[in-house]
Amino acid sequence: MRALIKKRPGPGLVLKDAPVPAVGPTDVLIRVLQAGICGTDGHIWHWDKWSQARIKPPLIVGHEFMGIVAEIGSAVRSVRVGERVSAEGHISCGMCLLCRTGQAFICEHVKIIGVDRDGCFAEFISMPEQNVWRLDPAVPDAWAAVFDPLGNAVHTVMAAGVSTKSVVITGVGSIGLMAIPVARAAGAAKVIAIDVNAAKLELAKRLGADYTFDALMDGLDQAVLEQTNGDGADVLLEMSGSGAAINQGLRLVRNGGRAALLGLPSDDVSLNLAENIIFKGLTVLGINGRKMFETWYQTQALVVAGRIDLAPIITHVKPLEEYEACFAMLKEGKAAKIVMTIAAR
Amino acid sequence: MRALIKKRPGPGLVLKDAPVPAVGPTDVLIRVLQAGICGTDGHIWHWDKWSQARIKPPLIVGHEFMGIVAEIGSAVRSVRVGERVSAEGHISCGMCLLCRTGQAFICEHVKIIGVDRDGCFAEFISMPEQNVWRLDPAVPDAWAAVFDPLGNAVHTVMAAGVSTKSVVITGVGSIGLMAIPVARAAGAAKVIAIDVNAAKLELAKRLGADYTFDALMDGLDQAVLEQTNGDGADVLLEMSGSGAAINQGLRLVRNGGRAALLGLPSDDVSLNLAENIIFKGLTVLGINGRKMFETWYQTQALVVAGRIDLAPIITHVKPLEEYEACFAMLKEGKAAKIVMTIAAR
Amino acid sequence: MRALIKKRPGPGLVLKDAPVPAVGPTDVLIRVLQAGICGTDGHIWHWDKWSQARIKPPLIVGHEFMGIVAEIGSAVRSVRVGERVSAEGHISCGMCLLCRTGQAFICEHVKIIGVDRDGCFAEFISMPEQNVWRLDPAVPDAWAAVFDPLGNAVHTVMAAGVSTKSVVITGVGSIGLMAIPVARAAGAAKVIAIDVNAAKLELAKRLGADYTFDALMDGLDQAVLEQTNGDGADVLLEMSGSGAAINQGLRLVRNGGRAALLGLPSDDVSLNLAENIIFKGLTVLGINGRKMFETWYQTQALVVAGRIDLAPIITHVKPLEEYEACFAMLKEGKAAKIVMTIAAR
Amino acid sequence: MRALIKKRPGPGLVLKDAPVPAVGPTDVLIRVLQAGICGTDGHIWHWDKWSQARIKPPLIVGHEFMGIVAEIGSAVRSVRVGERVSAEGHISCGMCLLCRTGQAFICEHVKIIGVDRDGCFAEFISMPEQNVWRLDPAVPDAWAAVFDPLGNAVHTVMAAGVSTKSVVITGVGSIGLMAIPVARAAGAAKVIAIDVNAAKLELAKRLGADYTFDALMDGLDQAVLEQTNGDGADVLLEMSGSGAAINQGLRLVRNGGRAALLGLPSDDVSLNLAENIIFKGLTVLGINGRKMFETWYQTQALVVAGRIDLAPIITHVKPLEEYEACFAMLKEGKAAKIVMTIAAR
Repeated sequence: MRALIKKRPGPGLVLKDAPVPAVGPTDVLIRVLQAGICGTDGHIWHWDKWSQARIKPPLIVGHEFMGIVAEIGSAVRSVRVGERVSAEGHISCGMCLLCRTGQAFICEHVKIIGVDRDGCFAEFISMPEQNVWRLDPAVPDAWAAVFDPLGNAVHTVMAAGVSTKSVVITGVGSIGLMAIPVARAAGAAKVIAIDVNAAKLELAKRLGADYTFDALMDGLDQAVLEQTNGDGADVLLEMSGSGAAINQGLRLVRNGGRAALLGLPSDDVSLNLAENIIFKGLTVLGINGRKMFETWYQTQALVVAGRIDLAPIITHVKPLEEYEACFAMLKEGKAAKIVMTIAAR
Repeated sequence: MRALIKKRPGPGLVLKDAPVPAVGPTDVLIRVLQAGICGTDGHIWHWDKWSQARIKPPLIVGHEFMGIVAEIGSAVRSVRVGERVSAEGHISCGMCLLCRTGQAFICEHVKIIGVDRDGCFAEFISMPEQNVWRLDPAVPDAWAAVFDPLGNAVHTVMAAGVSTKSVVITGVGSIGLMAIPVARAAGAAKVIAIDVNAAKLELAKRLGADYTFDALMDGLDQAVLEQTNGDGADVLLEMSGSGAAINQGLRLVRNGGRAALLGLPSDDVSLNLAENIIFKGLTVLGINGRKMFETWYQTQALVVAGRIDLAPIITHVKPLEEYEACFAMLKEGKAAKIVMTIAAR
Repeated sequence: MRALIKKRPGPGLVLKDAPVPAVGPTDVLIRVLQAGICGTDGHIWHWDKWSQARIKPPLIVGHEFMGIVAEIGSAVRSVRVGERVSAEGHISCGMCLLCRTGQAFICEHVKIIGVDRDGCFAEFISMPEQNVWRLDPAVPDAWAAVFDPLGNAVHTVMAAGVSTKSVVITGVGSIGLMAIPVARAAGAAKVIAIDVNAAKLELAKRLGADYTFDALMDGLDQAVLEQTNGDGADVLLEMSGSGAAINQGLRLVRNGGRAALLGLPSDDVSLNLAENIIFKGLTVLGINGRKMFETWYQTQALVVAGRIDLAPIITHVKPLEEYEACFAMLKEGKAAKIVMTIAAR
Repeated sequence: MRALIKKRPGPGLVLKDAPVPAVGPTDVLIRVLQAGICGTDGHIWHWDKWSQARIKPPLIVGHEFMGIVAEIGSAVRSVRVGERVSAEGHISCGMCLLCRTGQAFICEHVKIIGVDRDGCFAEFISMPEQNVWRLDPAVPDAWAAVFDPLGNAVHTVMAAGVSTKSVVITGVGSIGLMAIPVARAAGAAKVIAIDVNAAKLELAKRLGADYTFDALMDGLDQAVLEQTNGDGADVLLEMSGSGAAINQGLRLVRNGGRAALLGLPSDDVSLNLAENIIFKGLTVLGINGRKMFETWYQTQALVVAGRIDLAPIITHVKPLEEYEACFAMLKEGKAAKIVMTIAAR
């Protein structure tokens, strides 16, 4: 089968032949139809510090996808050949404290597809039955292909709790953008998006942000206070990983508010804990992955109910063969979310 | 001033002159502009068993209203003469366990306007400053006049937690109807309304219910299961107070679901606790009044953000003088919510 | 192997030979050392209405036990032969909404050992690896044998949330008795036990109940109010399943309190929902089984930390051969908890 | 009356005559019997940077106390002259978003006694009725005098949720020490105390810490992991305000754990947010003051039930006249908690 592979340490990926993966008794072989490109895939391509420490080539990359069940292991009971599915890319151990208490998404022994084992930029991928998600017919293929990052947004929004609340989102990359319609669908009364990229802010507005602000504008704090009755926002969704944005965001949350941190800072971040967390009585939530599988149920429920529209976010759908152009567009910030078509239905 | 008064024990209310109420140092005198009629007012009119036990005539009735601040006591600091306000009608003691732990809405020493002390079907009402709610200019008068029952709906929906959930509402009287747009605004993915009144179900549909069912139809359980992936609904909002509806609703909630009970049964209700609550691992919430004042913030946030539309529910706005016709319409089920105009602006 | 078997419909159990159970690739064969007798086992013995509807003989009964791993299937990774273990007796499907959202304890397709498939009153039992619980060396054998009902008590107490609270327990059968030290260990400030059985109340006192009351005494409500600052108890743990006790318990909880219902009524129960749940703003929790496996972690943590003492509750440890005497004692109320020794170490 | 006063900017306090404070209609005049000295009082004495910015002399200092009601305002209904009381020192505005939603402890307009208005190191203090707490007869005077810092400990422990959990406390100053018996009483299964002060760690052990560690020892992380099944602690209670301790503490909490931050860092703190909060899925809580008045109910419940013992923590009870010696002892770390006797009963 064809697969997009990190062949050896160093920048770049190559499209090569690879063997179809084995299917154990509790595994499901999926023929991949569409797959989304994540920022993490870009890090692996460019072989950044994190990739150098974590990735062991050769490795098929990619972790956001949907496809059709091609084969099932002998013990598999919950899916059938021919079913349309996506899958949770975090493969948890099943027996640790976290896995046994409904928190498998933070399993300490997690293996991630496209990072720790072969991923989905390939004609086939083998997944444990436990990780497979059956798709409702109402979910478009391209949307199903990005249930992984959409699930990040849903997990963040639901953990923060936004019903009737004012919400500040710092950072509107693709997950930050997804968080806008998700927050509105989940009941947010006001959504304020902050970023340094004017085009992304424009898109944020189209997606339903009530207000958008340049992170570097003068008087930003005052502007946000004016939109939040002078109290500050009820909720912060931090989607940038930027230290400056995290500080800004925490400053903009009101006393007693909630801040959900999804964006990953690459370095330590210096915080005024006393003023911005402790005196305020803030609740700060570290957000990782997606709840398995509460987030998946929530995500599909919102999509099937027609409560969110991802069309403006999936800016490009391209064939796998154009992967070089796709990665280039993402690097240059010329795309929000790109989905690659790997096989026809 | 003119006021609608229960003069003596027995059916009926009379429109009579009454003295303008006194204004203590921590009180606010409000000139009432508009007031909503509640089912409870009907019970008092008709002098049912509950009224006979609770009401001590003479009493000015009514508890849902909005108006303009006419005078403030010497110690009042948070409102000014001329401001447009509504008010929480539950006057709590302020010093009991419940009041001191953020649960004043279930204060054991609560006094309710229009029930335990003079109410709002009058040109003026005097309220403790603590109970006064300042209205955002974006809230229409007639909507502000029904913030009390709208708050019941918001409290029920928010206590249940509906974001991304499937929701069954049993009983679509005026609060049940309000719960439909509120549940959708708060993030419900699917709203199913059940009642015996076809006209109310029609209105439920206009307000955003995804499905409506006659409570007496054959195969109701099966029909609801089909709309909820065979699991049952995530959430029940019980708004009828009917024993049959409560049993039906509990049966329709899935294992691990949540049921919020607002409707007040007039008699004891026999329940299959083992099957419908215990084995299911259900959470059942008794809902009373509105959270003071979290619910008011939530209610106003939803209205100001344009997330809910009450227009279809407020079927009539009539002058106070036509109160007899108004009460008759309600008794005959010919109106959803009636607001009476007591004074011009 | 020897096993205690319901051979055919009708009263009684027989001690007979049975084949050692098969061990699939994901199963663990356990040599049973000790096993607790539950009220449910008594129902099966006496072939009550519930048993007639649910039990399909022939069936090995029993679901509370501990033992030593004798053999593991080829795919088992988390336990080893020779390890001392107990096991969760609810075998869940793993793929339904409940199982996939951390609520496997209310899986709709659950199979219970000793009820729906062969149980633990036998020399060996085969359990899925997922259900096996590795025992800390600090847990005595007889205590480990009753982790199932102890877990019911822990689940109830933890769901209710008792830290710093006043707690009423209605019904001090063996689980109600266990709930007393558990509630104290979990932080309850005051524990009040209510039952009709004076001997059980005496034992309740020895286990740490601050006050005990006869359920039928005059002035019970007043007595409980006096011990709870006139407000009523913060928390009710309902362990009796008696309709009268449920009503009594709900009446004794304060406004805004929490009631956890574990006891299973055999018939419908008539409740004053308006006064005792809705006006009060109560939270009522249906409690089933044990959280898999949060409850097991909590239970073992309390035992290992020496925070609870089960010695007074396990009134008898008898060899399996004396099973007839054991069941007779339980029926006559002459024992709290009986553990049967099935094999020597 | 005599009072301990910050007369003018600069170090030191003086014991001088001052007028008995006025008593408004909603105020309660309290004759102070005993008062605790807090670290904050030391900061004001030594006129540190924070004091220079916040304190406006002349000011009577002190905010932890108990006494006897000497006089009540005309509108006061809930306390009587002669009653024994303590009081919440945070005087909230009553009408802001926080105050109106049960979070008065983080009111943005809060005034603190002994900081923003006259405090309790005086023969009399005037407090709003709303802030007065009636003492149960079972609470010893000296313990009642430190309900303020004890309440900090209770608030932190209860916000974190410790029942059946393993708990790491970083920093065992007087509040950290109090947190040990409180955490045990609230159900913690294991308490691990970390500090740099060997004498405090010794005291921690006497108060019930299961393990104590020098914060600077080699292999600390490993040692804590060994005591927490290799997972890390379920809960962190950060009581030091030291940046190093905060980082250490966050590192020691397990995935999915909870960290409650009470200690106030004087400077910004640099954190590895990605590793220690986000990937872990941590919940971090900023803790400020005491919940008004949930924490007070909880605190008194624990004391009255005999669940905690403060005797080892209140190392000195001294007459007000010896205030200079008291402040010196605290500065030199020779005392845990000092209570000053201001008047005889």
